[in-house]
Amino acid sequence: MEILIINGPNLSKIGLREPEIYGNVEFSSYFKDLCNLFKDHNLKYFQSQSESEIVNEIVSRADSVDGIVLNAGAYTHTSVAIRDAIASIKCPVVLVHISNVYAREQFRRNNIIAPVCKGIITGFGLDSYKLAIYSLI
Amino acid sequence: MEILIINGPNLSKIGLREPEIYGNVEFSSYFKDLCNLFKDHNLKYFQSQSESEIVNEIVSRADSVDGIVLNAGAYTHTSVAIRDAIASIKCPVVLVHISNVYAREQFRRNNIIAPVCKGIITGFGLDSYKLAIYSLI
Amino acid sequence: MEILIINGPNLSKIGLREPEIYGNVEFSSYFKDLCNLFKDHNLKYFQSQSESEIVNEIVSRADSVDGIVLNAGAYTHTSVAIRDAIASIKCPVVLVHISNVYAREQFRRNNIIAPVCKGIITGFGLDSYKLAIYSLI
Amino acid sequence: MEILIINGPNLSKIGLREPEIYGNVEFSSYFKDLCNLFKDHNLKYFQSQSESEIVNEIVSRADSVDGIVLNAGAYTHTSVAIRDAIASIKCPVVLVHISNVYAREQFRRNNIIAPVCKGIITGFGLDSYKLAIYSLI
Amino acid sequence: MEILIINGPNLSKIGLREPEIYGNVEFSSYFKDLCNLFKDHNLKYFQSQSESEIVNEIVSRADSVDGIVLNAGAYTHTSVAIRDAIASIKCPVVLVHISNVYAREQFRRNNIIAPVCKGIITGFGLDSYKLAIYSLI
Amino acid sequence: MEILIINGPNLSKIGLREPEIYGNVEFSSYFKDLCNLFKDHNLKYFQSQSESEIVNEIVSRADSVDGIVLNAGAYTHTSVAIRDAIASIKCPVVLVHISNVYAREQFRRNNIIAPVCKGIITGFGLDSYKLAIYSLI
Amino acid sequence: MEILIINGPNLSKIGLREPEIYGNVEFSSYFKDLCNLFKDHNLKYFQSQSESEIVNEIVSRADSVDGIVLNAGAYTHTSVAIRDAIASIKCPVVLVHISNVYAREQFRRNNIIAPVCKGIITGFGLDSYKLAIYSLI
Amino acid sequence: MEILIINGPNLSKIGLREPEIYGNVEFSSYFKDLCNLFKDHNLKYFQSQSESEIVNEIVSRADSVDGIVLNAGAYTHTSVAIRDAIASIKCPVVLVHISNVYAREQFRRNNIIAPVCKGIITGFGLDSYKLAIYSLI
Amino acid sequence: MEILIINGPNLSKIGLREPEIYGNVEFSSYFKDLCNLFKDHNLKYFQSQSESEIVNEIVSRADSVDGIVLNAGAYTHTSVAIRDAIASIKCPVVLVHISNVYAREQFRRNNIIAPVCKGIITGFGLDSYKLAIYSLI
Amino acid sequence: MEILIINGPNLSKIGLREPEIYGNVEFSSYFKDLCNLFKDHNLKYFQSQSESEIVNEIVSRADSVDGIVLNAGAYTHTSVAIRDAIASIKCPVVLVHISNVYAREQFRRNNIIAPVCKGIITGFGLDSYKLAIYSLI
Amino acid sequence: MEILIINGPNLSKIGLREPEIYGNVEFSSYFKDLCNLFKDHNLKYFQSQSESEIVNEIVSRADSVDGIVLNAGAYTHTSVAIRDAIASIKCPVVLVHISNVYAREQFRRNNIIAPVCKGIITGFGLDSYKLAIYSLI
Amino acid sequence: MEILIINGPNLSKIGLREPEIYGNVEFSSYFKDLCNLFKDHNLKYFQSQSESEIVNEIVSRADSVDGIVLNAGAYTHTSVAIRDAIASIKCPVVLVHISNVYAREQFRRNNIIAPVCKGIITGFGLDSYKLAIYSLI
Repeated sequence: MEILIINGPNLSKIGLREPEIYGNVEFSSYFKDLCNLFKDHNLKYFQSQSESEIVNEIVSRADSVDGIVLNAGAYTHTSVAIRDAIASIKCPVVLVHISNVYAREQFRRNNIIAPVCKGIITGFGLDSYKLAIYSLI
Repeated sequence: MEILIINGPNLSKIGLREPEIYGNVEFSSYFKDLCNLFKDHNLKYFQSQSESEIVNEIVSRADSVDGIVLNAGAYTHTSVAIRDAIASIKCPVVLVHISNVYAREQFRRNNIIAPVCKGIITGFGLDSYKLAIYSLI
Repeated sequence: MEILIINGPNLSKIGLREPEIYGNVEFSSYFKDLCNLFKDHNLKYFQSQSESEIVNEIVSRADSVDGIVLNAGAYTHTSVAIRDAIASIKCPVVLVHISNVYAREQFRRNNIIAPVCKGIITGFGLDSYKLAIYSLI
Repeated sequence: MEILIINGPNLSKIGLREPEIYGNVEFSSYFKDLCNLFKDHNLKYFQSQSESEIVNEIVSRADSVDGIVLNAGAYTHTSVAIRDAIASIKCPVVLVHISNVYAREQFRRNNIIAPVCKGIITGFGLDSYKLAIYSLI
Repeated sequence: MEILIINGPNLSKIGLREPEIYGNVEFSSYFKDLCNLFKDHNLKYFQSQSESEIVNEIVSRADSVDGIVLNAGAYTHTSVAIRDAIASIKCPVVLVHISNVYAREQFRRNNIIAPVCKGIITGFGLDSYKLAIYSLI
Repeated sequence: MEILIINGPNLSKIGLREPEIYGNVEFSSYFKDLCNLFKDHNLKYFQSQSESEIVNEIVSRADSVDGIVLNAGAYTHTSVAIRDAIASIKCPVVLVHISNVYAREQFRRNNIIAPVCKGIITGFGLDSYKLAIYSLI
Repeated sequence: MEILIINGPNLSKIGLREPEIYGNVEFSSYFKDLCNLFKDHNLKYFQSQSESEIVNEIVSRADSVDGIVLNAGAYTHTSVAIRDAIASIKCPVVLVHISNVYAREQFRRNNIIAPVCKGIITGFGLDSYKLAIYSLI
Repeated sequence: MEILIINGPNLSKIGLREPEIYGNVEFSSYFKDLCNLFKDHNLKYFQSQSESEIVNEIVSRADSVDGIVLNAGAYTHTSVAIRDAIASIKCPVVLVHISNVYAREQFRRNNIIAPVCKGIITGFGLDSYKLAIYSLI
Repeated sequence: MEILIINGPNLSKIGLREPEIYGNVEFSSYFKDLCNLFKDHNLKYFQSQSESEIVNEIVSRADSVDGIVLNAGAYTHTSVAIRDAIASIKCPVVLVHISNVYAREQFRRNNIIAPVCKGIITGFGLDSYKLAIYSLI
Repeated sequence: MEILIINGPNLSKIGLREPEIYGNVEFSSYFKDLCNLFKDHNLKYFQSQSESEIVNEIVSRADSVDGIVLNAGAYTHTSVAIRDAIASIKCPVVLVHISNVYAREQFRRNNIIAPVCKGIITGFGLDSYKLAIYSLI
Repeated sequence: MEILIINGPNLSKIGLREPEIYGNVEFSSYFKDLCNLFKDHNLKYFQSQSESEIVNEIVSRADSVDGIVLNAGAYTHTSVAIRDAIASIKCPVVLVHISNVYAREQFRRNNIIAPVCKGIITGFGLDSYKLAIYSLI
Repeated sequence: MEILIINGPNLSKIGLREPEIYGNVEFSSYFKDLCNLFKDHNLKYFQSQSESEIVNEIVSRADSVDGIVLNAGAYTHTSVAIRDAIASIKCPVVLVHISNVYAREQFRRNNIIAPVCKGIITGFGLDSYKLAIYSLI
């Protein structure tokens, strides 16, 4: 199986900043662990600060991968464009949140993207990605 | 590890009713599969239609289990009592939803319990339980 | 035809308390009148203060009766669990209100259960039950 | 007893249009059935697309009939004028809805007229009228 | 000066119904008193239950009268059409309310017409009309 | 093709009043221009201040025309009755607004009728009608 | 008759500032005109920027005057204390607004004081006071 | 005097959990102190996690006690059933909150039960019960 | 112990006005009873109609008294200034309401001051003060 | 005339995906049809997934084209930046929606861009573009 | 230049209380620093707990100073009277907040006064005043 | 000190467009003035229409500059991504608005970014930047 992990804005700094919210493991090393754990599968990684690049990635890769694991970061709460991109494809998308967004600011409870995803995994730290991959395979 | 699965109201009928939302596997047979899959662990099961019995179960079992997987069903959207019960214990609670509650009626987006849980898994059908157990072990 | 009448919390006291809202006929004597009136049919009666017992009664009796007349009392405005129970069965449920809930406190206009019922009868005093039975037969 | 049935806008087409919501029996033939069923009583019928004509009918006929069965159609959700007309008379008014308005668009849950009516019957198709007449006699 | 008094729905019954809100003087006799009081002026009277007739009256008479005293009754709270009619004319319109609408139901505080009127007189019983005429002359 | 243009309240005065919003061309002369422009088609015109007459016109003409161009004026924001009339017919209805209602008072953004129309044309002055006819032919 | 006129904050500057809203007649000279006009009556005047002084004036003078004309200015929209003061006295209070508050900022439509007043006069410029005195005598 | 103290869900654990909110005195030992302090009176104690058992206790004991001290815990914010039970009895009910609910989550400011109670005591820790008993005797 | 009782606007008239809400005991005589009842303590009394004087009293006396009993009257619902004053001191403040504010107008449920107080006592008539003093000593 | 057509995110896939909403004609072939139809005019086309590129295109091209036809897609509901760009230019912008956004999810009724456009065309499928061009020429 | 600094309620205690929010420099000593720093200008200082005194100060001093620096404290969020005072003068008013009001309680985001000020400076501690003076000179 | 000025969308056109809101000084010439004024400091300038480029600039430059002056333009009201970027860095960010956003459209009062900034300067035209730099040095 080929699975594409997409990280949205500010998520390139996981492990480097705000460890009280996001922990202190860098995503690059965590991604290596994921690749080892799921070595029978083909994991791809894409990160962007840009809403439009994420839209492009979703739409252009949807036909060639078996599943997408998406952490849209801040765009989770603001991007109708990403929602529309996911609604227009057939490939299953699993939405992940590192932190428990229900326990943070009120505006983070407005989740624009979730209704069009296959499932949502929230609050398990970086293990949210691992669970998302389990759910796809 | 000892893990307690708690199912709330109407969830005793999973697999028997509304298969278009909940699928057609009965929970009892699914629970056997879970026990087989996680045979190194001790899985317990409790189901109740009653808010107070769920409160009791959470509070009285919290010190003797290593984790709770809770599908509070309809009480997810109405029960401050269950929320308070979870907030008063130290044992981690993982909240699961079989269906994607974000894609259903508006009132199902009001999640009273999620802010005090360790994590939330939403929309993977019965596999939501499996992912929840993975997250605890 | 077999018809089950379910009364929710505080409705055991009809006729004994707050006659200005609910009248002064006790439900037990009214139920006898109903049985006489509909003697070709089989009327059953269940009353409970408990949300979970009402959920149980609805789900467990749904396959054996031809219709349910439900006065959920206060749970009309708070219980997603009873709503989900009704949504999961095929037996028709008629919701009744003794008083005109539209003319009382604002929160009584939030009716969680009505959308999944076959019909709703509101404001005719105890005769609301009689009309509900007429509607089923 | 003399009972006046008033139908509001678009209800002249019952049975001819949108049968999935309103059924396919024309109101004129249904009215004949009602007259037969309640032949000891004097049933009158009035239909208008016009809010003001309905206001007039209610106010001018209130002293000469024993009860009014009102299906205000769309005006149920918008007409303070009809509400005020009903509030100004002593004759009992029973409000009927053919469809279950609770299960339709959100704006149909705003019921301006119901608080000043004697009772409300909702969702039984054309039988809603029959039940309304039962409630008056 | 020529002044047109327009009364909206249900106001033909002032003095006959709901005296606790509207008093028990009939409008026709009150209008005679007004004519006597302001005998140097030319008072006209128009009453209609119909929103469209009121719109017509306002628009068609606006150029031939020196002022309009409008009690729009229930349409005060619902009619954008009357608001637009007033906004389109140059003749001053004074809005009157017999009762203190601020002290009644919440929905009566939504006043659609007032922003386009010259002034508003509220709560003085039938004397509200007298004050309105004073304000115009 | 036979196309019916329906204008709602206050629109008989286009070109005569409030030119800063609606321009200064009278609708009758504009209608002649439209007839000339679309001389291969049969254009009909109906104007009324009355919600009920508009409902009647829509319902009674729906089977004999090929399309309706509707400027409901103020009723756009208040009339559930017109909405229900349009929903009950098969003939396509195009909704037009002369001014840009998005740039005016907040309450004009509440558009009750638009969801049941084929399309909506907003803000092009009288040319909104021309575009609406283009869209139908 | 003895009538007390109370002006709230910023109203001492009427006629001196913001003439486009409040006109350019100073209140002191207008008050002289009022005294001349109603010379059979005893008019008193009190102005204060202070909510508490207005409360005091209302409560301490209520038993010795026959009526109060109150322009509470900004406190109209914020002062529960003035409302409570008026509710506690028997002397009639007429509320006046110089400008049409319905046509200004949204927060000026929140009128805390009006529900406990005898009547409200809005939008006639300084003549609002004159009409208020007429209403009392 | 006979006074019944009723504690709602999760309150059996006072003194054992979350001491930063509820202190660290167990309720059983505190109840003994209360009995000593008010030894001229007859104090009874009832605790339940169950909404329906609390409803039952209130209704069935209302005629035999002189007052009820109720800490409804989480049900304070959700239970219309308990509200209706209190509204149906004559015995005075004093509502107590151990913590200052105004200073906690927003949803705890929605108090469904308070409007039908004799008085409310909020935020004094366990001493809230003592004050409640003082208020009844 | 030295305890300062502060009464806000309109509370100087307790016992003289609106006895159906506030009873008919004057506060001055009630204060004497309080002084007798708590003769081992030093009770002080301050009343003002003025928000700023109350702010001053709280801030200037906070260091010299052991507790403050505050009935802020109408300012309870409007005064951020009093809230800020209380938040800035260390002396405990107990908020009292004579009437059950939960059972009155909706705007009285907005309590700005309560979140920064030690406790709140609501609805026991003048005895609310007595209970407040008990809570401090 | 030179007219610039701008398509926002996900609109590059029109005709390829979700044909039940957007039809099955590809935009590139439709654009050719447009060029043929309006061959006396100079049509330009720009598509981007990126909010900032659309802002740039609008601002940089505004002085060199005679009109802009904008389908902002998802950004219609979220982009203040595009709104500000349009507000800062003099070139007329016509907003188009392929589908009837009034008949879809509630959040699509929040139209941030429309108030600053010359006109809006909604719901005619790809013909919305054709009508927009007609409106400009 | 003559500049008037006005401080509202509770601001006399800056430096003495709640140093975690307001720092620990007393305003009197800070004001001396300001006078030294801006010794070419004439700085005046006024502090009051009273809304009405602030209104008076603004209105009576507006013509004799070149600018006003206003920290309205709690009245920022509640005082329409101060807003109206500022709106009625020509002298520029700069609003300052010591703390970042956006990062505190929700109700502090309601800023009634800001719309009528020349500018607003928020969150720089006491330096907010210094920046405000810079902005005026 | 090294200070980075970041301008968001549409701000490249300051001085060229909408001078009634933004004045008519071009930012490039204003920036030269700033450099001259603060010649002891190192000012850098970055402008982008793109949310993601602004996020990148903030995150990548945060460790190498002593302060950031940010005018996020339209993104102030929509970008959670920029907010999260600022929250993740230690470098102080001062938010500036050229115009008084409180006095413009309602949606401009929703400020997503302000809560995580050191301070906010609003409404001083281009001088807002100058004041922001003063605040940092």
